[in-house]
Amino acid sequence: MVGIAQVNVYLRVSAVLFYVLTACLVGLDSQTKIIFFVARKATYRDLEAFGILVYVDSAAAVYNLLQLCKGLISARFEGNLKGAYIYISWIGFLLDQLTAYITFAANSAAFEASVLAVTGAEEFQWMKLCNRFTRFCFQMGGALLCGYVASILMALISFISAYNLFSNYSSKRFLRLKKT
Amino acid sequence: MVGIAQVNVYLRVSAVLFYVLTACLVGLDSQTKIIFFVARKATYRDLEAFGILVYVDSAAAVYNLLQLCKGLISARFEGNLKGAYIYISWIGFLLDQLTAYITFAANSAAFEASVLAVTGAEEFQWMKLCNRFTRFCFQMGGALLCGYVASILMALISFISAYNLFSNYSSKRFLRLKKT
Repeated sequence: MVGIAQVNVYLRVSAVLFYVLTACLVGLDSQTKIIFFVARKATYRDLEAFGILVYVDSAAAVYNLLQLCKGLISARFEGNLKGAYIYISWIGFLLDQLTAYITFAANSAAFEASVLAVTGAEEFQWMKLCNRFTRFCFQMGGALLCGYVASILMALISFISAYNLFSNYSSKRFLRLKKT
Repeated sequence: MVGIAQVNVYLRVSAVLFYVLTACLVGLDSQTKIIFFVARKATYRDLEAFGILVYVDSAAAVYNLLQLCKGLISARFEGNLKGAYIYISWIGFLLDQLTAYITFAANSAAFEASVLAVTGAEEFQWMKLCNRFTRFCFQMGGALLCGYVASILMALISFISAYNLFSNYSSKRFLRLKKT
C-alpha cells in the first residue's frame, strides 16, 4: 500500500498547515476602535471559544506532526513492528477519530460565537459587534474557513486509518483477524 | 455477524431515543420571568443555535429509524442484495459519518451558546442570562448532555459501519475487494 501511504502523508502535511494557519489567524486577530471616546480592543481572548480553538488546533497540528515522525520511523523498522502493528493501528485510529471530532466541534463552537457576533441576539440584548470590528470579523471568518478545511482533511485521514485497521479483520466474524 | 448486527440495532434504537429526548427537551424548554415589570419569555427560538439543534437532532432520529427499517428489509431479502451490498454499505457508512459529525457539531455550537448564556461576555457587554432564567438553563444543560450521549452512540455506530465496509477489502491493496 505505497500509494495510499503517500496520500496519507500529503493529507497530514496539508492538515498541519491548515491547523497552524487557523491558530495563527485566530491568535493574531486584533482590532482597536475608538467607541464613545474610549479605545476598545477586540482580541481572541474576549470569547473563550476562540481561545479554546487556538489551543485545540495547535494540539492537532502537533499530533499530526508526531504521526508523520512515527510514519518515518516505522517505515525504517518495518520488520520489527509486525506483531505490534495492529495495536499501533488501533491507537492511531482512535486518536485520529478523536482529533477529527474535537477539532470539528471546537470549530463549530467558534463559528456559533462568530454568528452571534455578526447577528447579535435581540431577545437577550446582546448587541452586534461586526458592524464596528469589521476587519476583526473578516479575519475570523477566514480562520474558521481554514479550520473547516483542516477538519475535513482530518476526517479523510481518519477514513484511511479506519481502512488500514479494519481491512486486517475478517468480514465474517467481528474483530477476528484474517488468516494470512 | 449476527452478534454485531444486534448490537448495531440496540445502538441505533438508543441513539433514536436520545436524539428525540434532546429535541423535545430543547424544543419544549421555555420560562417566563417578570423583569422590570415586563414579562419576558425565554424559548429555544431566541438563539438560532438551539433551533438548528432541534432540526438536526430530529433529522438524525428519522435517519436512524430509516436505517433500522432498511435493516429489517435487507435481513429478509438478503440473497437478492449480495451484489449491491457493497454500494449500500458505502452509502450507509458515509451517511453515518455525516450524521455523527453534524450532530456533534450542532451540539457543540449549542453548548457554546449556552456557555455564553451562563458566563456572559464582559468585553462585549453581553449579559448573563442564567441567573434569571435558571430553570430554562438547567433543562438546556440536561438536553445538551443527552445530545452528547446520542453523538457518542452515533460515533460508535459509524465505527461499526466502517468495520462492516472496510473488512470486505484487501489489506494489501487500497480499495481492492478481497477474494472470497
